[in-house]
This record gives sequence, structure tokens and C-alpha cells, in this order.
Amino acid sequence: MAQWYSSVKPTPMLKAELDIVIPTIRNLDFLEMWRPFFEKYHLIIVQDGDPSKDIKIPEGFDYELYNRDDINRILGPKASCISFKDSACRCFGYMVSKKKYIYTIDDDCFVAKDPSGKEINALEQHIKNLLSPSIPHFFNTLYDPFRDGADFVRGYPFSMREGATTAVSHGLWLNIPDYDAPTQLVKPLERNSRYVDAVMTIPKGTLFPMCGMNLAFDRELIGPAMYFGLMGDGQPIGRYDDMWAGWCVKVICDHMGWGVKTGLPYIWHSKASNPFMNLKKEYNGIFWQEEAIPFFQSVTLPKECTSVQQCYLELANLVKEKLGKLDPYFIKLATGMVTWIEAWEELNSTEGTEAKAKAPKGKND
Amino acid sequence: MAQWYSSVKPTPMLKAELDIVIPTIRNLDFLEMWRPFFEKYHLIIVQDGDPSKDIKIPEGFDYELYNRDDINRILGPKASCISFKDSACRCFGYMVSKKKYIYTIDDDCFVAKDPSGKEINALEQHIKNLLSPSIPHFFNTLYDPFRDGADFVRGYPFSMREGATTAVSHGLWLNIPDYDAPTQLVKPLERNSRYVDAVMTIPKGTLFPMCGMNLAFDRELIGPAMYFGLMGDGQPIGRYDDMWAGWCVKVICDHMGWGVKTGLPYIWHSKASNPFMNLKKEYNGIFWQEEAIPFFQSVTLPKECTSVQQCYLELANLVKEKLGKLDPYFIKLATGMVTWIEAWEELNSTEGTEAKAKAPKGKND
Repeated sequence: MAQWYSSVKPTPMLKAELDIVIPTIRNLDFLEMWRPFFEKYHLIIVQDGDPSKDIKIPEGFDYELYNRDDINRILGPKASCISFKDSACRCFGYMVSKKKYIYTIDDDCFVAKDPSGKEINALEQHIKNLLSPSIPHFFNTLYDPFRDGADFVRGYPFSMREGATTAVSHGLWLNIPDYDAPTQLVKPLERNSRYVDAVMTIPKGTLFPMCGMNLAFDRELIGPAMYFGLMGDGQPIGRYDDMWAGWCVKVICDHMGWGVKTGLPYIWHSKASNPFMNLKKEYNGIFWQEEAIPFFQSVTLPKECTSVQQCYLELANLVKEKLGKLDPYFIKLATGMVTWIEAWEELNSTEGTEAKAKAPKGKND
Repeated sequence: MAQWYSSVKPTPMLKAELDIVIPTIRNLDFLEMWRPFFEKYHLIIVQDGDPSKDIKIPEGFDYELYNRDDINRILGPKASCISFKDSACRCFGYMVSKKKYIYTIDDDCFVAKDPSGKEINALEQHIKNLLSPSIPHFFNTLYDPFRDGADFVRGYPFSMREGATTAVSHGLWLNIPDYDAPTQLVKPLERNSRYVDAVMTIPKGTLFPMCGMNLAFDRELIGPAMYFGLMGDGQPIGRYDDMWAGWCVKVICDHMGWGVKTGLPYIWHSKASNPFMNLKKEYNGIFWQEEAIPFFQSVTLPKECTSVQQCYLELANLVKEKLGKLDPYFIKLATGMVTWIEAWEELNSTEGTEAKAKAPKGKND
């Protein structure tokens, strides 16, 4: 491993600096399996759908829970930027957190095992990924040079070996792969059983499909760009919330000089969602991404944008201007992006601290 | 796996379409271990150093062998572009081959085992890599979508799923990692024991350190750019032959729309070279790469360059113009690049066939 690691071992658990954000419509029994790994952390649960429904959380977890009524009360008219009846609502949790790091996970994700049969501490791996540098400017053929037993290979420029600050750690899934509806329909039985023992940086200038199922990021760095868009109820699209965030985040990380990693850790994704329902949600996205991705591939943010907020507002302008022609939805989405930044500033500026009312339900120990 | 694969199974072995190129200064006993995998293929052996030395090749292999006298005889004054006393001389083998594909391997590389203990047929994996498409334009988080049990994930644009033609397959090494002299000196005992079960495309616009130890490519596509430069005897640099080729090849593949893969297969790299000797060879390269890599990162080839030869000659011009200032060596290297293309054309044009004299030693069955 490159020298860097030695100084941070043993990996700090960041107990006081990380929130786990979980969007859900059901009781959180899945937390039982995660108890050894999550129990010391604070959870932010964002309840999707009917706010009158009671969500049961297993005993012993430290959490705050927000339902739609809470979101409306806290954000007022700005609540319009938070999706309803879609797990995109999770980004509200990013906004109300006051921690440096966020880990977000879906409630149908369980603890996976590595090839030796050992249970994988996904959160610990994400923390390692976030705390060690990325290498977005040149490819290392032995993957992450900061891992134990690895380093930069011959021909890797020495001036680039410090690496870049890591903003995002994108984890993967064993069992049910994250496929779109057409692929689900064509291959209903395909399961992912390949454990690829690698963490890699997605090179600068390259976009990727970011999945929100098993994702960690540095909220202080990139939080304001982690907006999961307008999906679900009243919107012509679903299941593109994390993709949208991924395109925006990658373009902004590239501009700011930060790294995005993908690979380890794996979680066990237990249940395939209904491909027919998914097709209904996705079909507009399947068309639109053919134009949206080339748009994001060609975006260059002006040098004057030196904060993520500035970058994001500039992106919102460009989305309105360039993708607005594709469908009026993108004009609404661009407005949502601006509202999101306004709400983020309100809750996260010093004066905004009081505006962040306590969660109505929750247990803090 | 994406639909594509089914039509080519079982993997064609390409017996008649692939040459194995081996540069060497010693008897090729290492071939014994490769016998089950290489014995059906034709070998092109490029003998480095003293041409009067007799190189022993195990019985039963079909080969042609070229020493320095042969190179001088076949290329005449153009032999100046082929390095002497450096394994960079291997590229002469690419030039005299008449096959579509090349696999090149070092004589200190042995058969590796996968985690299940099975011997890895490196050549078969390279052929699979070359025959299936690459995906240089968008990242797939489950790695190679054309592998069994894998596919494109949600959010991968459908218009990009055909992929691009693969020009290069870069394999890796277990045991002795391919480190530069400073890293070898600092970590003399580091061994690579991590088997990463992945093949991935290096995204468009991203450079990588290409190692020539375990490398396959489509000679008909990219052969003219696989020049290993001027290294070794009489040159101020060594151990940058494959790096140089890798920078040129990647820039040209990006321009032509072809893919470069890295990852599987692994070979077992048996012996670390002497780090003190390596430092002597490398030290100029360690300085120069700090300017050469940004140069290659910023190169854009004009649209008018529609063949690899045209691209390569344009690159030679740019090298002379931009890197010539760094050191007169690059002016000599640019001349070598032009001579290489001239020699390539001479041996590979229809009229040139006769110029390619038969190898003086060798056994063809």
C-alpha cells in the first residue's frame, strides 16, 4: 500500500461524524441484520408515502424519523423540491443531517459475505474509501493504490500520487443486480455472484450510473449536489433519482478536482422490484437519458464557480436551457434544483440552525 | 451477460490468426510451462543482445527467430528504429507478423492460478477480451457487461450498448507487481496476491500505464501504433518502451473510437528485476513522464487522420514540436517513430511481402 494508509489505521469509525439515511415505506426489520454494524450510528429515517402510517424501528437504534408532514412543516413551500411516493425523498435526510458524512442504504439490502464467508462491514469499507485519496487523473492498473498490498505501478506519474480528495464511495450489490426494467424483463433469473475485490476511481471526464442503494459521501463537500430530483407522485418519471444525482455529482466533482470511487463494499440485495412497475416509471427516462447523458458529458462549468452551490445553480441554468427543449419536465426539475439549494442554505447556514426543528418522532440516547 | 457473447461460444482459439511474440536473451525453458496453452500457436522470438549466442527453444514449438543480424538485414538502414539490448526490440516481431492478432509475453512470466486453484489460460482470456466489445464512452459499475452473469446496469444508455471494437487487452500479474525502481527499492518484499475478477474498459480520455509483459492486441487495427520506442543500448532511457506505446496507442484508440481493456488474465511474474539497474534505466523517464503525460492528455488528433498510420505520423510531429524542447532525445524518438511507420509499410504493403525474408532459424510445421 502507498504510505498514506498507515497514519489512519485503525480506521476511525466516525461515529460522531456520520449519519445513516434510510428511505422507507415499511417497518425496518432489516436493521436487525445490520445491528452489529449500525447500532453505534445515528439514523435518519425518511418515511415515504402516507404519513399516518406507523413505521416500527427495532429497539436500541438511535434515530430521528421524518414523514411528509414533517418535511412540509420544516421546508414550507420549499418542500416542493422533495419527491413524494418515491425513495428520492431520501435526500431530505442529507439536508437535515449536520454530520460530515452520509451513508444511505435501501431497506431491502442485507449484509453480504465475502468469498471467505465473512460478513462484510459495508460501512467500514465506505469509510476507508472516503478517507483515502482518489486517483481521477490517471488510471492505476492494480486498482486502488492505497489498499494494503497495492501501490502505484511503474509509469504512474509521481506528481499525481498524492491523489485527490474523495467525495463519493459507490458500493455494489450481490444477488439481485441493479438492472433497468427491460433487462429485468429479459433476464428475470440473473443474479450477481461475482465478487470483484476492487475499489477504483472513476476517471475524470467519465460519467457512471450512480445507484443510491449502497452509497456514501462527504456531505460537507458534495452534499448540496446530492439532490435526488423530482420523481414519483405527480412526476412523469421514477427510478432516475440516483442517476440524476450521479450525473450532477460527477460533473461537479470533476470540476472541483474531487474523486468518486466505485467497487467494494458489496451488500446483499434481496428482492427484485417489479419490472412492469419499473418500466412504467422508467420509460421516459430511457428516452431522455439518451440526450441528458451527452448533455452532462459536454458540460463545462465556468472557472468562476468555486463552490458546489454555485456549480449546482449553474447546472440548473444549463438544464433549463439545454434540456428544457426536450420536455417541460426539465424546466420544472431545474426549478426544483434551485429550490433545493435555497432549502439547503436555509437549513445549513448558521442562522438556519434553528429552522431545523427537532424531528417529531425519534429516540436519541 | 449481454446478448453478444452467445454467438461466439465456444471461444474460437484463433490458431491461424494469432502470433505469440517473445523477446528474450536466454533459453526459453519457460515455454515448458505454457506448452498446453501455446503449443498450437506460432511463436515469433526476437533475440535481444549478442546475435552469436544460441537460444534454445523446447522441442515441439512452431517458431521463427530473429536476432539483430536478421533485423539489420531485413530492415537495412531502417533497423535504426528497433532498440538493441532492451526488450523494446519485441516490436520488430509485431512488424514481421502477418497475423491479425498478437500476444506478447515476457520470458519470466509463468502460468498463474485462479482462486479455485485452476491454471489460467491467459491467452484464451485475452482472445475473449479482444473478440468482445469495449465500452469506452460510459462506465459500467458491474464491469464487463459482456461476461457471463453480467450486463449493463440501470442507467446505462441503450444507444451505447453495442460498445466499441476492442483493440487492446492488457493483462495483469500475480506475485511480482510491475513497480518502478523507487517503489521496488522502498518495498522489496511486496507481492501481489489480490486476484481481481474483472475486465474493464479504460474510459475514453483516460491514459494508463501499459505494461508489455502480458499484452494482446489486434495488430490489423492498432499494430502500426505499437512501437516500443528507442530504449536500451545508446539511449538515455529504458523501461519506458511499453509506457510510450501505451500513451500513443490510447490516444489513437480514443481518436479512432476503439476500446482498450485491462484486468484479467493474470500471469505469474516470477522474478523482480534489479531495482538499482532499473533506477539507472528509468531515472530520465521519471522526470520526462511528468511532461510527456500531460502532453498526451492534451493531444487532439485532427479529423483528417483516418488511419492509424496517419495518426501516428501526426503524433510524431507533435512529439518533435512539443517534447523536443524537453530533451533532444524526443527529436530522435520522433524520427524513430517515422522510420517505424516507413518500415511497417514496407513489410506490410502488398508489394512489401517479398521484402519480408524468411527467418534464418526456425521450425515451421
